[in-house]
Parts: sequence; structure tokens; C-alpha cells
Amino acid sequence: MNKTVKVVILTFLLLSVVGLCIATEVEASSKLDEVIQVQKYFRSIHIMAMLLAGFGFLMVFVKKYGRSAITATYMMVSIAIPTYFLVEHTGLFSHPGPAINSLILAEFAAASLLICAGAVLGRMKVYQYILLGLLFVPFYVFNEWILLSGGLGLIPIDAIADTGGSIVIHAFGAIFGFGLIFSLTSKKEYKCEVPSDATSDRFSLLGSMLLWIFWPSFCAALVAPKDLIPTVINVVLALCGSTLATYFASVGLRKKVSPEDIANATLAGGVAIGSTCDVTIAPIAFVIGILAGLLSTLGFAVIKEKLQHLLKKVDTCGVLYLHGLPGIMGGLVAIFVVKGLDVKSQLLGIVVTLVVALVSGLLVGKIVSLTGKMGKPYDDEDQLEV
Amino acid sequence: MNKTVKVVILTFLLLSVVGLCIATEVEASSKLDEVIQVQKYFRSIHIMAMLLAGFGFLMVFVKKYGRSAITATYMMVSIAIPTYFLVEHTGLFSHPGPAINSLILAEFAAASLLICAGAVLGRMKVYQYILLGLLFVPFYVFNEWILLSGGLGLIPIDAIADTGGSIVIHAFGAIFGFGLIFSLTSKKEYKCEVPSDATSDRFSLLGSMLLWIFWPSFCAALVAPKDLIPTVINVVLALCGSTLATYFASVGLRKKVSPEDIANATLAGGVAIGSTCDVTIAPIAFVIGILAGLLSTLGFAVIKEKLQHLLKKVDTCGVLYLHGLPGIMGGLVAIFVVKGLDVKSQLLGIVVTLVVALVSGLLVGKIVSLTGKMGKPYDDEDQLEV
Amino acid sequence: MNKTVKVVILTFLLLSVVGLCIATEVEASSKLDEVIQVQKYFRSIHIMAMLLAGFGFLMVFVKKYGRSAITATYMMVSIAIPTYFLVEHTGLFSHPGPAINSLILAEFAAASLLICAGAVLGRMKVYQYILLGLLFVPFYVFNEWILLSGGLGLIPIDAIADTGGSIVIHAFGAIFGFGLIFSLTSKKEYKCEVPSDATSDRFSLLGSMLLWIFWPSFCAALVAPKDLIPTVINVVLALCGSTLATYFASVGLRKKVSPEDIANATLAGGVAIGSTCDVTIAPIAFVIGILAGLLSTLGFAVIKEKLQHLLKKVDTCGVLYLHGLPGIMGGLVAIFVVKGLDVKSQLLGIVVTLVVALVSGLLVGKIVSLTGKMGKPYDDEDQLEV
Repeated sequence: MNKTVKVVILTFLLLSVVGLCIATEVEASSKLDEVIQVQKYFRSIHIMAMLLAGFGFLMVFVKKYGRSAITATYMMVSIAIPTYFLVEHTGLFSHPGPAINSLILAEFAAASLLICAGAVLGRMKVYQYILLGLLFVPFYVFNEWILLSGGLGLIPIDAIADTGGSIVIHAFGAIFGFGLIFSLTSKKEYKCEVPSDATSDRFSLLGSMLLWIFWPSFCAALVAPKDLIPTVINVVLALCGSTLATYFASVGLRKKVSPEDIANATLAGGVAIGSTCDVTIAPIAFVIGILAGLLSTLGFAVIKEKLQHLLKKVDTCGVLYLHGLPGIMGGLVAIFVVKGLDVKSQLLGIVVTLVVALVSGLLVGKIVSLTGKMGKPYDDEDQLEV
Repeated sequence: MNKTVKVVILTFLLLSVVGLCIATEVEASSKLDEVIQVQKYFRSIHIMAMLLAGFGFLMVFVKKYGRSAITATYMMVSIAIPTYFLVEHTGLFSHPGPAINSLILAEFAAASLLICAGAVLGRMKVYQYILLGLLFVPFYVFNEWILLSGGLGLIPIDAIADTGGSIVIHAFGAIFGFGLIFSLTSKKEYKCEVPSDATSDRFSLLGSMLLWIFWPSFCAALVAPKDLIPTVINVVLALCGSTLATYFASVGLRKKVSPEDIANATLAGGVAIGSTCDVTIAPIAFVIGILAGLLSTLGFAVIKEKLQHLLKKVDTCGVLYLHGLPGIMGGLVAIFVVKGLDVKSQLLGIVVTLVVALVSGLLVGKIVSLTGKMGKPYDDEDQLEV
Repeated sequence: MNKTVKVVILTFLLLSVVGLCIATEVEASSKLDEVIQVQKYFRSIHIMAMLLAGFGFLMVFVKKYGRSAITATYMMVSIAIPTYFLVEHTGLFSHPGPAINSLILAEFAAASLLICAGAVLGRMKVYQYILLGLLFVPFYVFNEWILLSGGLGLIPIDAIADTGGSIVIHAFGAIFGFGLIFSLTSKKEYKCEVPSDATSDRFSLLGSMLLWIFWPSFCAALVAPKDLIPTVINVVLALCGSTLATYFASVGLRKKVSPEDIANATLAGGVAIGSTCDVTIAPIAFVIGILAGLLSTLGFAVIKEKLQHLLKKVDTCGVLYLHGLPGIMGGLVAIFVVKGLDVKSQLLGIVVTLVVALVSGLLVGKIVSLTGKMGKPYDDEDQLEV
């Protein structure tokens, strides 16, 4: 392991210990409020299942890189959560709310981190994923602060519609990942195939299903009890829509069904419904899901190869097509769906997100690329004792 | 894809969008009632885990058909839920209750659909699973309406004991599936082996375990908070009983333990306890589980091959032995266990279910068989880009 | 199957049916209390996911013994739960509390049983796992009674800090397992390699992640709503700490990252935080996790082989290093962390646990070893019809 990186990470760990003083009193004022907090906890566990088993196994599709993908997922989740707490505790950005909200927001940051890492999967050493987590989280919090907490005075608080994170979580992570690939794809890596097989596909489909299952809890994690049921039904219908649309689009565009489309684009409804999940109604949610599934499948089946060829860079998991385009679409859809939305702020929020994500992704990619390089990309043997 | 099917499915999708006006207001009258609705939501997520990762991976036991089985599961869940909402919304059958109840009932329909599809697994193209879902749900709702909502005036409301769906969900799905196989097993397919291997078995056992884990939430999904704890303990004990009994029966009947029995018959206790889960007591639940495990293992180890040979038809997953016989047993057991049960209605409910399921299964099987045929049964290559 | 064993097990099953009269009334006094009981149920489901899919799949790492490991897990869970109820019902030990507490305590017993079985995994026939469960649970309850319910008058009630079971569940199971290996490792078995491969590793990592995800619910299963949020945050931070530490320790000690370390030592934070999860604060939880990860990785990477060589006995899953050492560490840490702790009782509790576990493990290992022996250790073919 690169020595500088080691020192950076260990220093951070020490800092964390000192800084990990998140408010762990329960701010509940009654027994019923305590119960409501515990219900948030259950949703936070669902999100944890998405982060580790969901995102983790979705990335196992690379035939020979499964154990590394899971190891990297473990490390990124474990670095993102205390780092989020640490950054929050500096007080530079928004003030922390109840402890369970902090945990959920930290999980959201971890989700966004896992998304961006999907773009460079297989081309980094394990310690580089940890370093990536350390560098990613502050930029993520910075953007979250601008969009949701009035940071820099650009956007009024509560002006943005993004309860389930189409913009703040999905688009940010995907575009950050897009920034990463410029410094983190060598010529050799561009030419290297990324094969999957029947077993790696089945693991990947398991991860995909776990994401699908718990997605309603992700979108509704911080929603009040009275709004929760309509929210989760919207998310389920959006996912049904994207799943059906993916099949038709995959057959239409490729003549056969691609497991890659089924594992990924099926989830695009969940990405795209994020901005409007708590304010739209069932039939519109279903339509949003269908459109997102079509868009995402088009991305995987057509755009991915073309863009890769054009840039000579590789987005391993195609995060631009699962999280990027559907995330942006979700943010834009809010303009047509949410009554009384401050359109200017919503558009500004999307633009700010794209700019912050791209610039910081380019920068962080450059830094990470200086700390080492895989000998054999997309191969467990390079780093694991197998 | 068959063009007529395409048109049918796409027309339906349009209809859905128009019809998807399920009541998404929360009907809760107090903050505590809202919390109770959210608890139902958590159980609905558990059921979703059973549908996708549970049933889905249980069906991955077919060595070369795993990715198709998962794709088919994705499609069936995604078509069943909006179709259930659509049929409910026509108002022809029972009036929809609170939105979260509709979601749970739609999931029950999806479970029954996945059960019937298990009988013909590996012998249909992906779009045929979608078509099957479209045709299955109305018949399912029709039967549910007769048994539980006084439809056609045959059975008084609340006369049937079937909280966890032994009759309405499991027996219905299995017998419908039994009806399907008559038109959906060609001679070539009858002669074709359905091999599993160490990896497909491990995936299948994962699906089995996920079903086992969340089964208590399935049975107790709509149970009131005060009855929930005894209900779930009964379900857990029934599952413990069937799991232990399966081992002894498997060794007794086959001399060695069969992974097929372990993945399937272990769950028979959950199927059979469905009708009485909220009214029986712990020791009886354990006995019901033991008997169901014995019956189901007998089905897999002995009856399956004999019946297949007799009919020259294939029930791929053996749904008759996991869901059919234990489901009927569960419905009958209620007669001995439930105090003050209207025996005539219970028996009539079982008979109606068997008749409706068989007739509609035969009919739907015929229709689906007209829309296409696998070139290579039980093989991903036939339809997926692999 | 050995006939005596068959008779013992079947006699037990009959006894269970008679004895399974656990209190299944809800002891809740208000609608809100019912809701709180249902929240415990949700945590009990999380624990069930850990027992079956978590522990079960973690043990699938043995390349050719995956299906047997899962079958054994199924049987052990299914025997442990009714046996716990039966032993509790004898009234010899502590009086049963609310039914949902009994279920959770029975699951804790099953967890401890699965831990001890990990030490002898691959060297027992399936019925021997069932017999092990029957013999293990009474000793487990005996120890639990001494530590937590004032049994034998040794330790005052509530004197021990062990909410999440570092001592009572983890250390007990691991040391019991250590006792088992003396009679349950033949020379041939000592010399036999226990290989894993890419697929068995990926399944094992899935089990590991499922344990990680639901660990907060395990530790907080019986914690009151008002203390739940700080407890789960402590557990999450301890797991983050051990996960990061495992990576650094694994690379430091082995030069490459070992999937065995990643699947196991990552969880050591959860084991070690058990005794103090509801009383410590976030930064200390993170440090406890880091230390536990280092200790556990040291166990897997260095101690395991040395001790195995010294004793000529095999601890297949290395339960001593995941559950044993970190469990004892967790119990000892409480002395420094918990204000006003009765240090003498805490130490006595640890010593009693070690003594009871070792003696009963040695005894039960001897008994089980008399009832049969694998022909081909670590191989599904020996017992399954594959």
C-alpha cells in the first residue's frame, strides 16, 4: 500500500475517534415519538441491506472480481459512515438533526459513494476505495448543503423536490463517477474486456433484487408516518414500470434480453421517482417508471458502447445509465409534477449538482490515480490472497 | 415476440396508467394508527423479499435457467401488482380497503402467480410469463372475492379460516399451475431432464431460507397488532416442525438427504399453518408443521415421479407438493382446530378454489401455449443474450 | 442414521409437542404497548435472517460442503427454538417473560449453537447437528440462568453488562465449540484440507454481509425504544471500525487481503460491542470495533494455524477468533467502559461462562462422537443425494 495513503487514512481514523461525538440522545418527547424513531431505524436497516448486499452483489457481475467488489463495498460503507459523522460534526455545514436522521443521511452518502465507485470498479486497489470514500464524502456533503440546507445562500431551504435523492444521491454519484474515469482508465484497461458468467450474473441479479425490494424504504426513510404509505406505493409502481419497460426495450434494442439490462435498468424507476415520490400520484409514478426504464435500457444497450468508444474511457457498471440519466430525469420530472415548485431553484439545484460532481470527480480521480495502479485489472488475484 | 401478445400487453399497460387510481390517502385517524399502518408496510417489504429474492432464487435450482427464472420473477411481480390494482379498481369485486392493504393483497396475488408459474418453469418465453400474469390475476381475484368477500353469495363473509392463505394463495396457485401443465408440456419437454448442480442448489437454498425467514410476516401481514405475536410464533413453530420432519422423511424415503426436499418441503409448515395461524396454539402449530413436512416430502420423493410418468406432464418445481397438498391440508386442518368454524363454508371454499383454479389453469394454459414455444427448454440461451 | 439417536430425537419431538405451551397471550396493556411488541417482532425477524441466511451462508465457504452446511443450519435452528421453549417451560430456570421475548431468547440460543457448530463444520452427519442442538441448549440455558437470572445465587440479577451477548452468546458458543473439537477431529480430518473457491467465497461473503446488516437488531433486540437509537449507532460504528481494521491487519499480516478475514473479522466489532452496546458512546464504540477487528484478524491470520498445529485439532470456521476472543474482549471492556459496574460479578460471569462452556463442550463432543462419523469429511456427497 502506498505509504502516504496509509498515513492519510490512519490520521483520519484517529480524527474520527476524537470527532465522533454525534448526538446520541433520543430527541423524542413521548413514548409514541420514540416508536416513530424506531420505525426510522427499521428503514435505516433496509438501506444498509441495499448498501452492502444490494450494491455489493450488483457489482459482483464482473466474473473474476467478485470478492474484491464485495471487499471494496465493505470498506466504502465503513469509511463513509464515520466520515459523514465527522464532517457533520465540524459544524461547517448543516447542523445535525436527531441521531437516527444522521445515520440515514450517512447511509445516503455511502450510497452515492458506491454509485461513483461503480464507474471505476475493477481498476482500483482496495485502499484506493477507502481513500476515495474519504475524499468523496466532503464534496457530497458540500453539495447536499447547498441544495437542501441553504448553503452559500444559493437555494432557499425546502425549495428543492428531492426526497428520495434522484439529484443529491444518484445524479451526484453518477456524475462524480463519470469524472473519476478520466484519470482512472488506462489504455490497457480500456482495451480489457469485462466478462461476466452465469454465476456472476446470478449474484448480480440477487444484488439487483435486494435493491428493488428495499428501495421504498430508501425513498421514504425520512418521510413522516402519515405520508409513508402513498410514498412507498409510488416507489413500488415506478419500479414495476421500469422493470416491465426494461424487458420490452431490451428485446426491442438487442433482439434478446440482456442480463445486464435486467439487473440494472429495472431499478431506474426507483432512481427517477426519487424527486417526486412523496408528492406524485400512482398513475404518474407508473409512467415515470416506464420512461426511466426505457431511458436506462437505451443507455445500456446503445449509448454505453458508443460513449466508451468515443472517450476511450470505461464506466464499468454503467452508473451513468442507471443513476445518472434517470437521476437527472427524476429531478426534471418534478418540474411538471410538483405543484407550486420553485422551478428556478430546482433547475439551479440540478446544475449545481452536475458541476460540483463533475469538477470534484475529476479532481479526486486525479488524486486517487497517483496512489497506485492495479497490475491485473478486473481480477481478484491482483490484490486478494486467493 | 408474438405480435398479438405484444399488443395485449401494451394495451394493458396503457389501461393500467389510466386505472391506477388506488386510494393513496392514509385512512388513519390518529398518529398511533399511522404507526400501525407503517408496521403493515414493514411486513409488506418482507413479503416483497419473499416474492423476488425468495421465490425467485428458489427457482434458480434449474442449472442453466437461473437468469431466466429471475428475469421471469421480476416480470411477474411487476405485472401482478398493477394488474391487481387495476382489477380492484374496476369495482367488479370487493371494494379496496386502505392503500397498504391493497398493496399486501396485490403481493399475495403475485405470490400465487409465482407458485403457478413454478409448475411450467423453463418451458415458457419471458413474454409468456407476463401474459400469464395478466390472465392469472383476474381469476385469482374472482376466487378471492367468492371466498373472502361473499362474492356470488356462496360463502358468508368471514366464514372461511384462511388468514395466511393456505387455500386462497397456495392451493389456488398450485392447482392453477397443475392446470397449466397440460397444454404447456410437449413430448420433448417431458423427456428432457431438469438438472441442477452444486451452485444452482446453493442459490435455491438461499431462496428457500429467505422464504422461511419472512414467512411469519406473510401470514401475519394483515393481522391486528394484538394478535400478531401468537400468530408469528405459530408460524415459526410450524416451520421448525416441517424442517425437522423433512429431514427424517427424506432420509427415510430416499436413504440420503435430497437438496430438493430441503429447499422445498422445509417450507410446507408455513403453507399448511396459513389457515389457522392466528387461531391455533403453539403445540398444535408444531404438529401441523411436522405433518405438512412429511406430506410434502412424500410428494417430492415418491408421488412426483409417479404422477409425472402417469400424465407425461412436468411440474418443474413440484408446486403441487409444496403448495398444493400442504395448502389443501391446511384448509382442512382448520375444521379440527378452529372452534366454532362454519365447516360447510370451509369445505365449500376449498372445493370452489380447486374447481376455479383447475378450470382457469387449463384455459389459460391453452391460451398461453398458442403464443409461442421455447426452442431449448430449461436453457437461458434460448431467450437471453448470454 | 444411528438408531439410538433416532429414538432420542423422536422422543424429544413428542415431548416438545406436549411441552410447547409457551405463553402466547400478549401481555401488552395498551395499544401502544402492542405496537412496541410488534417492533420487537421485527427485530426477531432480523435475527432470523442472521441465523439462517447469515450464519448459514457464512459457512458455505467450504467448497464442497455448502449444501450440507445449509441443511445443518436449517436443522439446528429448527431444533434449537422448540428445545429452548421446552427447557424454559420446565420452570427449572428463569420464568418466561412475554412470548416475543421468549422467541428472541430462543433465537439467541440458536445463534450460540450455530457458533459452536462452526468449530466442527464438515465433520458431522446431519443428524448429529440435530443431536448437538438437543444437548447444547440445556447447557446454554443453564449458563444464561446463572449470569442473567441469579441462578445458583452466584451473581446478582442485572449485575452483568451483556445486552448484546458478547459473553452469554458469543464466548459461550465459541468455547463450547472449542470443547467439541477434541472428540470431533480425527487424524484423517486434521490432515484434510478445507478448500474454498471463488463461488463458495462469494456465498460466504453474502452470509457475512447479512450478519453485518442485521447485527444492530441483534444487539438491540430487547432494548427499550428510548435506548434503541444510541445502541444501534454504537453497533454500526463498532462494525465500521472492525471492517476497516480487518483490511489493514490482513494486509499487514499476510501482505495480501484474505477473503477469510474479510468474511469473518469484519464482524468482530459486533461481537465485542455486545456487552456495552447500550451504555457506551460513539467514539468508544468505534475504538472497540477497531481493536476487535485487529484481534480477530490476528487470530485468523496467525493464531489459527499455530493452535491447530499444536493441538492437532481443527476449528473449521475459526469461531474462536471471530466469537471467542472478541467475545471475551467485549466482556472485559465493560469493566473499563460501564460506570458503576460490579466488576467482580462481571469477571465471575466470564469465568463461569468459560468453565461451563468448555466442560459441557468436551462432554457433548464425546457423546456426539459416539453416534457416527463422516466417511468423506467436508463433502456433500457423504450424506446428500447429489
